[in-house]
Amino acid sequence: MSNFFLRTLREDPADAEVTSHKLLVRAGYIRRQAAGIFAWLPLGLRVKAKIEQIVRDEMAAAGAQEVHFPALMPREAYEATGRWDEYGDLLFRLQDRKGGDYLLAPTHEEAFTLLVKDLYSSYKDLPITIYQIQDKYRDEARPRAGLLRGREFTMKDAYSFDSSDAGLDASYMAQRAAYERIFTRLGLDYVIVQADAGAMGGSRSEEFLHPTPVGEDTFVQSQGGYAANVEAYVTTPPPARSYEKLTPQEVVDTPNTPTIEALVAIANEKHPRPDGRAWTAADTLKNVVLALTDLDGSREIVVVGLPGDREVDLKRAEVAFAPAEVEPATEADFAKHPGLVKGYIGPWSPAGQVLGEESSTGIRYVVDPRVVDGTGWVTGANVEGKHVLGLVAGRDFSWDATVEVAEVLPGDPAPDGSGPVELARGMEIGHVFQLGRKYAEALGLKVLDENGKLVTVTMGSYGIGVTRILAIIAEENNDDKGLIWPESVAPFDVHVVATGKDAAVYEIADGVVDSLEASGFDVLYDDRPKVSPGVKFGDAELIGVPRIVIVGRDAADGVVELWDRRTGERVKVAVDEVADRLAAL
Amino acid sequence: MSNFFLRTLREDPADAEVTSHKLLVRAGYIRRQAAGIFAWLPLGLRVKAKIEQIVRDEMAAAGAQEVHFPALMPREAYEATGRWDEYGDLLFRLQDRKGGDYLLAPTHEEAFTLLVKDLYSSYKDLPITIYQIQDKYRDEARPRAGLLRGREFTMKDAYSFDSSDAGLDASYMAQRAAYERIFTRLGLDYVIVQADAGAMGGSRSEEFLHPTPVGEDTFVQSQGGYAANVEAYVTTPPPARSYEKLTPQEVVDTPNTPTIEALVAIANEKHPRPDGRAWTAADTLKNVVLALTDLDGSREIVVVGLPGDREVDLKRAEVAFAPAEVEPATEADFAKHPGLVKGYIGPWSPAGQVLGEESSTGIRYVVDPRVVDGTGWVTGANVEGKHVLGLVAGRDFSWDATVEVAEVLPGDPAPDGSGPVELARGMEIGHVFQLGRKYAEALGLKVLDENGKLVTVTMGSYGIGVTRILAIIAEENNDDKGLIWPESVAPFDVHVVATGKDAAVYEIADGVVDSLEASGFDVLYDDRPKVSPGVKFGDAELIGVPRIVIVGRDAADGVVELWDRRTGERVKVAVDEVADRLAAL
Repeated sequence: MSNFFLRTLREDPADAEVTSHKLLVRAGYIRRQAAGIFAWLPLGLRVKAKIEQIVRDEMAAAGAQEVHFPALMPREAYEATGRWDEYGDLLFRLQDRKGGDYLLAPTHEEAFTLLVKDLYSSYKDLPITIYQIQDKYRDEARPRAGLLRGREFTMKDAYSFDSSDAGLDASYMAQRAAYERIFTRLGLDYVIVQADAGAMGGSRSEEFLHPTPVGEDTFVQSQGGYAANVEAYVTTPPPARSYEKLTPQEVVDTPNTPTIEALVAIANEKHPRPDGRAWTAADTLKNVVLALTDLDGSREIVVVGLPGDREVDLKRAEVAFAPAEVEPATEADFAKHPGLVKGYIGPWSPAGQVLGEESSTGIRYVVDPRVVDGTGWVTGANVEGKHVLGLVAGRDFSWDATVEVAEVLPGDPAPDGSGPVELARGMEIGHVFQLGRKYAEALGLKVLDENGKLVTVTMGSYGIGVTRILAIIAEENNDDKGLIWPESVAPFDVHVVATGKDAAVYEIADGVVDSLEASGFDVLYDDRPKVSPGVKFGDAELIGVPRIVIVGRDAADGVVELWDRRTGERVKVAVDEVADRLAAL
Repeated sequence: MSNFFLRTLREDPADAEVTSHKLLVRAGYIRRQAAGIFAWLPLGLRVKAKIEQIVRDEMAAAGAQEVHFPALMPREAYEATGRWDEYGDLLFRLQDRKGGDYLLAPTHEEAFTLLVKDLYSSYKDLPITIYQIQDKYRDEARPRAGLLRGREFTMKDAYSFDSSDAGLDASYMAQRAAYERIFTRLGLDYVIVQADAGAMGGSRSEEFLHPTPVGEDTFVQSQGGYAANVEAYVTTPPPARSYEKLTPQEVVDTPNTPTIEALVAIANEKHPRPDGRAWTAADTLKNVVLALTDLDGSREIVVVGLPGDREVDLKRAEVAFAPAEVEPATEADFAKHPGLVKGYIGPWSPAGQVLGEESSTGIRYVVDPRVVDGTGWVTGANVEGKHVLGLVAGRDFSWDATVEVAEVLPGDPAPDGSGPVELARGMEIGHVFQLGRKYAEALGLKVLDENGKLVTVTMGSYGIGVTRILAIIAEENNDDKGLIWPESVAPFDVHVVATGKDAAVYEIADGVVDSLEASGFDVLYDDRPKVSPGVKFGDAELIGVPRIVIVGRDAADGVVELWDRRTGERVKVAVDEVADRLAAL
């Protein structure tokens, strides 16, 4: 350490919010260059290399082969798949000296597809899974949490190519199994949840989430084994009912009821249900006005009808309306549509106002899957101070589409019938999904099948964020003194700390280091003669190598201390037994 | 090879001019993504990794420590050192979503300087040498020759930091020695030549050139050990002479002598030298008009006086006038300066025209170092059809500065007195130079010295182009059949080729592969059952693994063939001796 390029810091960096960010900077692993962009110091680079090696091992075990694409890619292929536009502001775009358009690639689906198209032509060439470990770029609106959401980050992205759906399933399962082995070796808990494939398109899609209360993703799981992130949760609709025997709708005065609670109260007081059960928020149909901004910048107003006991979940709405961006309608939007009476919006009004793309308003009307034919609702009458009771779906109003935008609540049924779900939070650590033929079709990747017929190749995409995982491991492995690395990714196997000013101690420590290195251990050696034991111990705790050997006063008697960074336990060991003891651990 | 992600190609790529480019694409090592931008296929990635490992080994042996900077860097530090502008069109520039300016770093001097400034504060922290192996970007005007001049390329760049000049010398020599070891291990001939530090600034500067007739750099060397690239060659000026006894200048008619040859002929015919020796081109002072374009786009006309037997070397002129760009003056430039009479330009004219910044023309006049006080010249009179004889430097004309822009010719004296130089060509494979305090001063990197006084740190910079070296190795190691890798960087140690359709042969080959892998060899195994021996041998020759084992018909008798790719020699060997024989080689 007297020569090692490292300076530990006492103070947390001013811009750090999360523990991993604070500790990785203070312990000398990374250093900020710009918002969400970091340099790697020797300690950090060692941990990163160890994670990458584990990923490489398991990719090789899964039969995947490594390639490497440039970060700087020309626009054309991304244009062909629509991603040049779809990625919006997340993409770093630039021009070369000749005015040619380029981007810093956020992922490389297009490039991998074109490479296979370039080289392969027959089903006999397939299956193939190729991957890279590469620095990627996303111009995040709010880069934060250090490496957890950076603008430059290292990812392993793999892509499988098959000529049949069954082949894709097999390639997918091989990568999925490799991910399980990787996270196990990294000592990271994970839950595999169904996911929405998002802007990437595709069919089967699963995320590996590391469950943690501070995670930025919400997922649902049932006792019976169902797990999905909220964006992928699918509502179970009630059965459609016949409405032949239902009573006609009735418009009633409901002054001063802009909220669901007020509406339910007045309905129960003035208009009790014929069957005697009390009205609840779930009986009301809340109509929420959303504004969608499309890729071309155009703005559309959409009204969403959903049970009054649920809010719109904007993350689910983003998926439902992708690639448009979604936000609540503004006052300006309402001003342009005076027919939408705030607090009293309904799909139908006594004044003849009807929502729907084909209607007089032209405003799209979409509903929650719980709105099915024959369900009756208390809802707005599009007239200030009036609601309508018993408005029956399919009889009294219609809709343009069904959308999954309502929040998921604890107790909602798992779609596979495995019982009610609970909600939890996690951080994404991996994503496997079946792209299907989207990219192959857009870019013309076809091969000849057994019968000499051209078939479009089907693809899978498999990503792990290397630098993100490093941060999550740091986030999960620390205490108030500093980091505590799992052995599989620690920057060094052993940290030898020589203390005091006695030259004889340093000579003995030199010998310990030599014997450990001869036994194959990577050793960090604190040989700084003028630094106090307290500072050295503090640095050792901050840096977080899991095994520490203290060579101090007792060394002259042939005794050193073995310090377990995680448990804090210290045991005395004979100098010449250190290597064997550590090997046994 | 039945699963390996590789397809060899029969045809050279249409855009390939040089051998390495053709062969690396045809043999499946790299694949073009855009002009000067390539993807790495599994074979290429393996060779690249081997070169990188050799570089890492020798960096570690030289005490350098590895870090890693992002490619995407903010503008500020590059602005502080002037490089944001100086790099001109070579820099890829871009903006993030907030309009912040960024670049794709061509090198990282600024970032390394700021990192050390961030972490270090005392002379006791120094010396330190840190390096990275990283993908860099330069928007070359004419990317060409495949990896030899790409727009994205991998470089090892190291930087040393010292508190004293003596320390810098030691750090510099350590890197220089590491480079010698690296090139020796890579099997690459090299010449170390003095170099100009160019846009980077600095003092001592040496390039490692690989001598080859197709090199794009010209260098000079003497028998006595002097070597320099032509940009760095320094002219030895003749001694100044007294001009007391020299005859006065004489304007003579020299009609139709726009060329030096015509002028010398007419001078010898009509105006023989008083001393009887014939006039030669070296006695004439040729005045060449150059146009300099500065960073701010402004254009300046400069007249350069040099002996008539030499041309202006534009590469040397670029260095002399850096950072301005240099080109010969155009007709338009001449039109703006009617006082410059094409073919008859002189520093002095009977009509009173005198060149020089302080003169009536205001046009800077600079001269070759051979123009010293007391030298007499035949030169133009700035009058159509007239020259002047015996115009004496210092007596009859003066100049604003002396510049090294004349071409170097074989036989010119080495500046260190080690004899005449000869010219040769080479390719740059490494560059070591002393930056000195330029970056530290611009960015405020100071440390406290022994006396508690702040001193500015002095730096060195050391670069090796990893991908460029790979291409040069390919360029130097091939024949008409394909590549022939040196063992130190070959993608595999051994290529086992099983031939024919007999399953027993493939079983024996499986065993050979197993035993070779058990002995620690990396093996590429051509196990393709339906491919003809001819195609397999052709692929093996194209791919260029240096040792090939052919398992064919004789395998049933326990005999295989060992094929040396470089010599073409094939010898029969017993199956169970293959591993030992290869180990012995």
